[in-house]
Amino acid sequence: MKNDVHAFLGSSARRDARWNFGAGPSRLPDAVLAQAGERLLTRAADGMAAIERPFTGAAYREVLAEARGRLARLLGVPDHYRVLFLAGGASLQFSAVPMNLLDPSSGLCRGAYADSGYWSRRAIAEASRHAKTSVVARPAGSGEAGGGEPPLATPQLDGWHLPRDSAYCHITANETADGIAYPAWPETGGVPLVADASSCLLSAPMDVSRFGLIYASAQKNIGPSGLTLVIVREDLLHRPASSAPAPLQYRTQADAESCASTPPMLAVHLAALVFEWIEACGGLAAMAAANARKASLLYRAIDESGGFYVAPVEPGHRSITNIRFHLDEASLTERFMDESEAAGLLHLRGHPRLGGVRASLYNAMPEAGAQALAGFMIDFAKRYR
Amino acid sequence: MKNDVHAFLGSSARRDARWNFGAGPSRLPDAVLAQAGERLLTRAADGMAAIERPFTGAAYREVLAEARGRLARLLGVPDHYRVLFLAGGASLQFSAVPMNLLDPSSGLCRGAYADSGYWSRRAIAEASRHAKTSVVARPAGSGEAGGGEPPLATPQLDGWHLPRDSAYCHITANETADGIAYPAWPETGGVPLVADASSCLLSAPMDVSRFGLIYASAQKNIGPSGLTLVIVREDLLHRPASSAPAPLQYRTQADAESCASTPPMLAVHLAALVFEWIEACGGLAAMAAANARKASLLYRAIDESGGFYVAPVEPGHRSITNIRFHLDEASLTERFMDESEAAGLLHLRGHPRLGGVRASLYNAMPEAGAQALAGFMIDFAKRYR
Repeated sequence: MKNDVHAFLGSSARRDARWNFGAGPSRLPDAVLAQAGERLLTRAADGMAAIERPFTGAAYREVLAEARGRLARLLGVPDHYRVLFLAGGASLQFSAVPMNLLDPSSGLCRGAYADSGYWSRRAIAEASRHAKTSVVARPAGSGEAGGGEPPLATPQLDGWHLPRDSAYCHITANETADGIAYPAWPETGGVPLVADASSCLLSAPMDVSRFGLIYASAQKNIGPSGLTLVIVREDLLHRPASSAPAPLQYRTQADAESCASTPPMLAVHLAALVFEWIEACGGLAAMAAANARKASLLYRAIDESGGFYVAPVEPGHRSITNIRFHLDEASLTERFMDESEAAGLLHLRGHPRLGGVRASLYNAMPEAGAQALAGFMIDFAKRYR
Repeated sequence: MKNDVHAFLGSSARRDARWNFGAGPSRLPDAVLAQAGERLLTRAADGMAAIERPFTGAAYREVLAEARGRLARLLGVPDHYRVLFLAGGASLQFSAVPMNLLDPSSGLCRGAYADSGYWSRRAIAEASRHAKTSVVARPAGSGEAGGGEPPLATPQLDGWHLPRDSAYCHITANETADGIAYPAWPETGGVPLVADASSCLLSAPMDVSRFGLIYASAQKNIGPSGLTLVIVREDLLHRPASSAPAPLQYRTQADAESCASTPPMLAVHLAALVFEWIEACGGLAAMAAANARKASLLYRAIDESGGFYVAPVEPGHRSITNIRFHLDEASLTERFMDESEAAGLLHLRGHPRLGGVRASLYNAMPEAGAQALAGFMIDFAKRYR
């Protein structure tokens, strides 16, 4: 994996490079892509490729254990947490969280939710089909383009009144569509804090001990689509979980080492390779430093554009993985899209509900990619100012 | 794909070959494995490998459309059915079926189930957590080793009394653990017939029009683990589906072209390659003929062993994909396991609940694999008779 560290640090810029700024699935590390064929798709001495082996067998259990161990080291997962590798995307967890964590027999029959933007609203809507829900916090500002509104920010961290029957309190740690990220975590007392960390897990260190449960779909910083990580505090496995389909029951999956139902083996294998690559690059502190450098290249291009580009998000609440902005002259947006695509800067269109521009910079995006986009932005602004 | 047809027909026997007889994940076709690295893991002119592209983008939608089209041609799926590519294994469908098909407002509040063995009982147990269920048929015989019991068979096809409030009638078309398969389908009148066809779909032609819904996890004849196919008659999409998590709602997924939540893109790509390979090999009629030849090699070795090997299943009900037998002298079983493994014949142990021996022969197992096992069985019987 060592060769790739240099590429990661930005020395691989090429004139003809194409960069994927989509919100996910994202770029995989070059070294992972280079090894994946050999590691997953090539038959070994036992006549089987890794993806052809039984998931009940020792070989796959070793891959799972390796993935779990590397993740635990990277994040510093405390011993009283369990790591699950589940099939599907994060939105399946929108239902699985209430189905697993409600405990009506103990009077815990409500999900408390912080509304911070598009994806938290999706989580709230889905949870409301399975549980009573309360919205306990809302984002500050709106950041509407040209509306003279105050900039968008995550909810203020004080003043969250959690109903007494709250089984958990859910936040969306980084809003992929809105481009905002919590600068710190709320205090929720005895109510377990649950985070959808799909677009920020492994982009920087995260204090797992602050959370009862963290979930994240893989296709940003973890691996390919079709896998979701769940990191859950052991005491929460003992809630009744009566309504969840068996493959979505955290306790059932924890007892079965994430193999209570057919696991997405290929994605777990790739995740293990991605974790190895992150370790080889210096771990989450190195990821955080590189991600901050990449993000600052874009935010600087925005903030130094004299208002040509506008970031709707308040500094301090800006995501380092999903950089969102719009052009002050909205009629130039389509031209920006066309020219950036022609320059090999791909999938920059903002979320359909929010419009504008969004550049997603996950771990495997080399600094060269962010440099290329920042350079394009500066040049475009010069030409069309 | 053409080169692989010869390998498939059995000309690739090698002395040092190792064969995976596990019940799944199974062997992928050689041609699929050979192409997968190039097709999935290699960056193209847009700077992205297939698994790095957005699942909202045109490239992935073309892969989905191709997979859907090839499957529809192979199976002859009628126009009023929809094909869904969902994340997870078949056991998630044990819950999704009642969650989607019950319609209490129309008085359809029960799942009718045929019990035919291990996996149908798993499906019944899971459905009973979400719905009223009735067992409307049971297997004939038991095939218990040495018990003097009549051989095991699928339930008789007449005399199924479906309760009037049955929302559907569920069968397990091929029992992977028990090694039995329905020789024909039951008549269920106006009650939609639902089949778990995980271990037989694409092993032979199947008249889709007889079913309201067919589901199958991928890791037998379709692709890698982590994907489940659902083929559903359109009228069933209009039942209320109030309790299923959104990613498990058939109507929601049909409306969103199987992308209502993060799809398992890698598995869908591989499935498209597998479908292409099946077409190149001559389609499902060719698969059925080859599977029948492979299975008959083993059943003949059993039936001509003079009682050394015993197949507990009645002829006519024997699975062509999961060939189950035991050694009349049970104390030889471990020796059979050790020697077969040393001979490169792997994962032959029967399901843990049932014991004995099981050889799974899915589409991508060349005839040479079945020949190698049959040869070993004949030789072993000679030596230990």
